[in-house]
Amino acid sequence: MTDNASTETSDQPHVLPRGIRFAGVACGIKASGKRDVSMIVTDRPAVIAGVYTTNQIVAAPVVLTRSKTPTASGRVVLTNSGNANACTGEEGMQNAQTMCQQAADLVGCDPSDVMVMSTGVIGHPLPMEKVQSGIQSAFDNLSDDEEAYLASADAICTTDQFRKTASSTVTIDGHDYQITAMCKGAGMIAPNMATMLGVITTDAPIGPDAAHASLKSIADSTFNRVSVDGHTSTNDTVMLVATGLTDSKGASELSSDGLALWQEAASQVALRLAKLLVADGEGAARFFEVRVSGAASDSDALQIAKSVAASPLVKTAITGGDPNWGRIVSAAGYAGPKITPDRTTLVIDGVTVFENGTPQKIDAAKLSAAMKANSEVLADLRVGDGPGKASFWASDLTEAYVRFNSLYTT
Amino acid sequence: MTDNASTETSDQPHVLPRGIRFAGVACGIKASGKRDVSMIVTDRPAVIAGVYTTNQIVAAPVVLTRSKTPTASGRVVLTNSGNANACTGEEGMQNAQTMCQQAADLVGCDPSDVMVMSTGVIGHPLPMEKVQSGIQSAFDNLSDDEEAYLASADAICTTDQFRKTASSTVTIDGHDYQITAMCKGAGMIAPNMATMLGVITTDAPIGPDAAHASLKSIADSTFNRVSVDGHTSTNDTVMLVATGLTDSKGASELSSDGLALWQEAASQVALRLAKLLVADGEGAARFFEVRVSGAASDSDALQIAKSVAASPLVKTAITGGDPNWGRIVSAAGYAGPKITPDRTTLVIDGVTVFENGTPQKIDAAKLSAAMKANSEVLADLRVGDGPGKASFWASDLTEAYVRFNSLYTT
Repeated sequence: MTDNASTETSDQPHVLPRGIRFAGVACGIKASGKRDVSMIVTDRPAVIAGVYTTNQIVAAPVVLTRSKTPTASGRVVLTNSGNANACTGEEGMQNAQTMCQQAADLVGCDPSDVMVMSTGVIGHPLPMEKVQSGIQSAFDNLSDDEEAYLASADAICTTDQFRKTASSTVTIDGHDYQITAMCKGAGMIAPNMATMLGVITTDAPIGPDAAHASLKSIADSTFNRVSVDGHTSTNDTVMLVATGLTDSKGASELSSDGLALWQEAASQVALRLAKLLVADGEGAARFFEVRVSGAASDSDALQIAKSVAASPLVKTAITGGDPNWGRIVSAAGYAGPKITPDRTTLVIDGVTVFENGTPQKIDAAKLSAAMKANSEVLADLRVGDGPGKASFWASDLTEAYVRFNSLYTT
Repeated sequence: MTDNASTETSDQPHVLPRGIRFAGVACGIKASGKRDVSMIVTDRPAVIAGVYTTNQIVAAPVVLTRSKTPTASGRVVLTNSGNANACTGEEGMQNAQTMCQQAADLVGCDPSDVMVMSTGVIGHPLPMEKVQSGIQSAFDNLSDDEEAYLASADAICTTDQFRKTASSTVTIDGHDYQITAMCKGAGMIAPNMATMLGVITTDAPIGPDAAHASLKSIADSTFNRVSVDGHTSTNDTVMLVATGLTDSKGASELSSDGLALWQEAASQVALRLAKLLVADGEGAARFFEVRVSGAASDSDALQIAKSVAASPLVKTAITGGDPNWGRIVSAAGYAGPKITPDRTTLVIDGVTVFENGTPQKIDAAKLSAAMKANSEVLADLRVGDGPGKASFWASDLTEAYVRFNSLYTT
């Protein structure tokens, strides 16, 4: 059974799936000298599925990788950071293809078995000489130890302040399966992916179509429920790599019950990553959860929660530890879905500030102090008597975010 | 004919419409001691129309005033600032009614002929003793001179750094008509009104239904095309007061041709106010126009322009004078309407940075210097070959905005 407690944070040791090797190296794309090429290679052909940005302006690697998944013959997930290879025209597509060809030659597979991801600045051609030396070096450093996995997780980061990893073990029908994942943030984070890249690796035996459906469901309930700045990126990609290499007892493809168990465990891992991603939002000082109930449907509730989470006025109130609840209620009011104002109730960190359309007498200074003392704030909003509910997680909006993003390229 | 050049800024003297008096006084709702009660009274029953916030959470004065317009027997537009009378439950509605009754008693009309607007903090009961002394004092100070009009425009402001007024004279069929207007910003500014209040007064003879239709059209092309922070408020209201008192030659109700001329002139006045509102956005340092063309329809173009204008990453790039055009193009890509990436071209302040899907070689430092030297930036974005086009105006996003809104109530 799934044991949520086994979902570890990045501080804890990770057990890696069988049949997979990792590497993360620096090749000079990043002026800082930090790692910028990540390579994940399976020992044998593996199932690889992907979910991608919904932006119509998509980077060349997204166009290319999207055309290859889901597949049962995948071997490589190759990522560069520091340059998004987005809005780079025909040259960008050629560069993405060159990266795949080089990795395929090294690994000994077809270029169609290599998935490529890029993240970083938009609109600049990739420095291919550096990238190619990076790919060679990553290949030379592939290893199945935790150090290599962590280096790989480092190498997909851009403005992230810390690497984001999570893992879990799930036992299904007597077999132990590993789920070990990584992702990166940290700006352009919005629903329907973000400038986020993620890779979930597992040794569970899952077919390509099941892997695709499962990954989509996992992403919808985790990565698509977080927001830093509401800007959906050109590059967002989450990959699922399933080697199907189980313990010595052997195992056939997971049954639908088994897949459900695996998906629940993988969702916990992905949710952990999604929350790390929000906590590490550019300039984020505080992190908040908007929990909406009483809407007509779950999708209505999600739309309302997103509207609250996206409001700069709500975000700045969270930054200031300011229980300015009118901003939250009014953001629900313009979200779109029907709400019932005189059945609307808001509870912030356990304090009822607005009940059935009427403001409550509260000790605002005390509530503000409590909000400021926590790194997380919970806004629990009931908008009527319907059955719909949803949660959404977002970072606040700080002067540091503005400072950082005013100075990004020039 | 309409003479756009006659649309004056707030620095210039305003000619007031005939048959209308103004007052703006301080009654202590604002701790600062600034003016906080505005009163506009017509000499005789006048046409009053209104357009209102689309937020489902609406302030008591919006509920009340919305139920009274359009009308041909209007006499008063009464506004308090410093307190929005929003999310104030049953007590809030009683207070709004009390304000109308008091003004009606003073002016000698029915409470249904009094329109009330409020703006300021959400969720606090109105200090009615102060408000009532303010209404008396405003009535005592009513005057048809420019000083009273400017005091009235001051009294509707909240966090505005300057009052916003504009006026124009339009000659139709030999008659001169005045259009004299005011509005306030400056946070919670988003399409479909904002926390904006506005009053357009005129002495043109316009019937109530025509006034309503005309006002809606004016607002859609002006106030609904500006954004500071994307947060649609609970209180937004724009009123049109038409006294129908013309020059000594007399005039009957405007013909449809005459109304079109009047509407064009009034739209110019409203656009002037809308731009002042953006320029005075909370913490705004720079102001930008997004002009979209080549979309499938005008409404698609507007949706794309809004998406670009709302992106915190675009806004912070404008703040920094950073020609980070990938943020603009990618915000168009996730807006929703169909775009054609390889027919997408972006020109920033006259410099083509991206043409038909391919980045152009530019002198980024030079373009950045030019952006920084201007208080306005123009992003001209073609997204395909369709006939749809739209303009949208927005403020940037600064550390000052964040600082200000982190500290608003507590």
